Amino acid sequence: MSNETPVLFITRRAHFNAAHKLFNPLWTKEENDEVFGKCANEHWHGHNFDLFVTIKGHANPNTGFVMDLKRLKTIIEKEVVEKLDHKNLNLDVPFLQGVLPSIENIVIAIWNILILHLPENVKLHKLHLIETQNNSVEYYGPNIPF
Amino acid sequence: MSNETPVLFITRRAHFNAAHKLFNPLWTKEENDEVFGKCANEHWHGHNFDLFVTIKGHANPNTGFVMDLKRLKTIIEKEVVEKLDHKNLNLDVPFLQGVLPSIENIVIAIWNILILHLPENVKLHKLHLIETQNNSVEYYGPNIPF
Amino acid sequence: MSNETPVLFITRRAHFNAAHKLFNPLWTKEENDEVFGKCANEHWHGHNFDLFVTIKGHANPNTGFVMDLKRLKTIIEKEVVEKLDHKNLNLDVPFLQGVLPSIENIVIAIWNILILHLPENVKLHKLHLIETQNNSVEYYGPNIPF
Amino acid sequence: MSNETPVLFITRRAHFNAAHKLFNPLWTKEENDEVFGKCANEHWHGHNFDLFVTIKGHANPNTGFVMDLKRLKTIIEKEVVEKLDHKNLNLDVPFLQGVLPSIENIVIAIWNILILHLPENVKLHKLHLIETQNNSVEYYGPNIPF
Amino acid sequence: MSNETPVLFITRRAHFNAAHKLFNPLWTKEENDEVFGKCANEHWHGHNFDLFVTIKGHANPNTGFVMDLKRLKTIIEKEVVEKLDHKNLNLDVPFLQGVLPSIENIVIAIWNILILHLPENVKLHKLHLIETQNNSVEYYGPNIPF
Amino acid sequence: MSNETPVLFITRRAHFNAAHKLFNPLWTKEENDEVFGKCANEHWHGHNFDLFVTIKGHANPNTGFVMDLKRLKTIIEKEVVEKLDHKNLNLDVPFLQGVLPSIENIVIAIWNILILHLPENVKLHKLHLIETQNNSVEYYGPNIPF
Repeated sequence: MSNETPVLFITRRAHFNAAHKLFNPLWTKEENDEVFGKCANEHWHGHNFDLFVTIKGHANPNTGFVMDLKRLKTIIEKEVVEKLDHKNLNLDVPFLQGVLPSIENIVIAIWNILILHLPENVKLHKLHLIETQNNSVEYYGPNIPF
Repeated sequence: MSNETPVLFITRRAHFNAAHKLFNPLWTKEENDEVFGKCANEHWHGHNFDLFVTIKGHANPNTGFVMDLKRLKTIIEKEVVEKLDHKNLNLDVPFLQGVLPSIENIVIAIWNILILHLPENVKLHKLHLIETQNNSVEYYGPNIPF
Repeated sequence: MSNETPVLFITRRAHFNAAHKLFNPLWTKEENDEVFGKCANEHWHGHNFDLFVTIKGHANPNTGFVMDLKRLKTIIEKEVVEKLDHKNLNLDVPFLQGVLPSIENIVIAIWNILILHLPENVKLHKLHLIETQNNSVEYYGPNIPF
Repeated sequence: MSNETPVLFITRRAHFNAAHKLFNPLWTKEENDEVFGKCANEHWHGHNFDLFVTIKGHANPNTGFVMDLKRLKTIIEKEVVEKLDHKNLNLDVPFLQGVLPSIENIVIAIWNILILHLPENVKLHKLHLIETQNNSVEYYGPNIPF
Repeated sequence: MSNETPVLFITRRAHFNAAHKLFNPLWTKEENDEVFGKCANEHWHGHNFDLFVTIKGHANPNTGFVMDLKRLKTIIEKEVVEKLDHKNLNLDVPFLQGVLPSIENIVIAIWNILILHLPENVKLHKLHLIETQNNSVEYYGPNIPF
Repeated sequence: MSNETPVLFITRRAHFNAAHKLFNPLWTKEENDEVFGKCANEHWHGHNFDLFVTIKGHANPNTGFVMDLKRLKTIIEKEVVEKLDHKNLNLDVPFLQGVLPSIENIVIAIWNILILHLPENVKLHKLHLIETQNNSVEYYGPNIPF
């Protein structure tokens, strides 16, 4: 590692607009309403989601880049945004089938997709999924201690 | 009007998260897809909507207020936000029944509700409905010339 | 006007952090609490205020400027921001003495100061004073009809 | 107009990152430095520009749209953003040749391009060009009185 | 822990508008003015404060939630926002008595309140208190090494 | 450390507008165009850069400050902003001579300047450089493991 540049963290923003509801099919409607409140509305509601994808790595001396952000953008668009944008997160998304689409579960599912598609010289460091200006979730992968 | 303070414009922001789709029931699925693209997704999509309500009037010399913003907030919450937040704009909203919920049609419908509930000493001046950071609509009422 | 460029509207943002309370000294404490609620807290509260100053005029063919924004910035800083920033709007500001500092009354007072200091080739068009992300006031001067 | 919906104002945001300098070739370097200050730096500086394009028109009863925002986006991208994004506004832009690229002159030039490409059923109402969070310009076309 | 979901970080935003001044009562007015500058203005100044509260925990498999954000909101509103909003941070807040209300000291005091009220299955991870768009403080609790 | 307050993280925002291009002089124009795309435009492009500087330390019991933010602001303005604002990052900046001005390389260079000027009782913790709302880089210094 002696000739390498230091480790840097690069973040790319993506955006998607989607519908969902919070509903546990093992519960009654009353139980769902009590736990999830208006988020359980059977006819769905929706959000403008912002997703910040942070990778880490060493900058390439020839390009100054940890990773070409155009390439990162393309991966995020193809693997995540195209599958979520203007979709119903409960019904339309293959990688969310059978998942209760809380922001916690969505962000874990996105992580599990993205790690399959990044080049070997970088690591996925963090996902930050913003549902509203008041609510968001961050995920650093499955190995963070409580 | 000799003793009155000048006319001022007061704006209150409201917020709601809702699902909708753009779909004309008189058209085939193909025609809808061609015109509305991914906004026609049959399983809905959704947005975080910001609504800026602007009224105009003279400031009351005793309060300095054109209108008590707490009162304006209460009207907007009761008449608009409670009926739209975490709802499906195609299915759940009495004042949007039979309306294709484009931002244009939504904002006209909100205007027609709000003018019924404002006090006589102010006028509704403008509604600004922001669907995404890229798309928004403004409406100044039905009497604006083209 | 045949050789003049078209009319353009230029906006400069300023910022100040200030304390105030809403309190009518002709009323009892109970009356103030009823009308102004928590804004009447006797020990003050405060805000980060954003002020957007919009002027209009023709662009100078030699500079491309309606008005040098550095000069406009200097006027706003000297005449408005220095007198309001980190001040108590009820106690510390000469041009607000005896004024109930609602955003309506503040913006009128700022207008009356700024029109004295602008060059003759531009007109003050609008002031937009933002108290919180939910509440703001716009003022176009004293001659706007209701 | 009896069967028409009311007039609405639709705004689409665009974005471009560009270099420029403010420099009048008829003046000496000293005169340019005095008038334009650091904006005259001979080696250029740059900005992230946000452009808000507002059109007005009647909503089509079949679509709910004043204008298909996808089509408006395509026009703005092709006629404006592709010609300005990652460009030098003094050197690279055909429609700015010989123009001192102040935000005033840029916005007029963008207006003169866009009016050639909009459909007949809408009118270009306003351009709002934001250079920094402190500085912006609005233009409503050449016929606004001072 | 073998059956548990991974650790996630959930953030809820709160907001309060408050007055304060920076003033050390053990010093003279001159010493305070020298150290604190305009922040020492005896008649107070104020801010719109944004507070981001981040907790960490495992998502509950039945709800998808690390913690019900409605419950987190209620705790923050009751224990923090109601005690700070539209208050004077030097005079009105029981948990800030005798504390010089710098953003550093405010955020530590909020931490010490919030940890008393969170459920056992989550941990308070970070508080981010934003005083202005230029100034903010983050606190991760008392055990972070320098 | 027994008498010390806990460690806190303080962030100050700075801002500069600059031009740059991404271009490796060891490559042909075609190679540069292929790797850097429109960022290689020979006539430059530019951005509004936001820089968030985070330091950590213990709050001084007499002031409540980890570090006087006015002093931190002065250091950032003098050592960083004055050298970057309204400059060409490829041509005008002494501490970027010979550096390909990607955001990765810029942020490392800013770190290496700032650590020379901070007082001994604080540590530089993080730099966050935001080039556009979609792209940013974070740097925690040279000792972070991959």
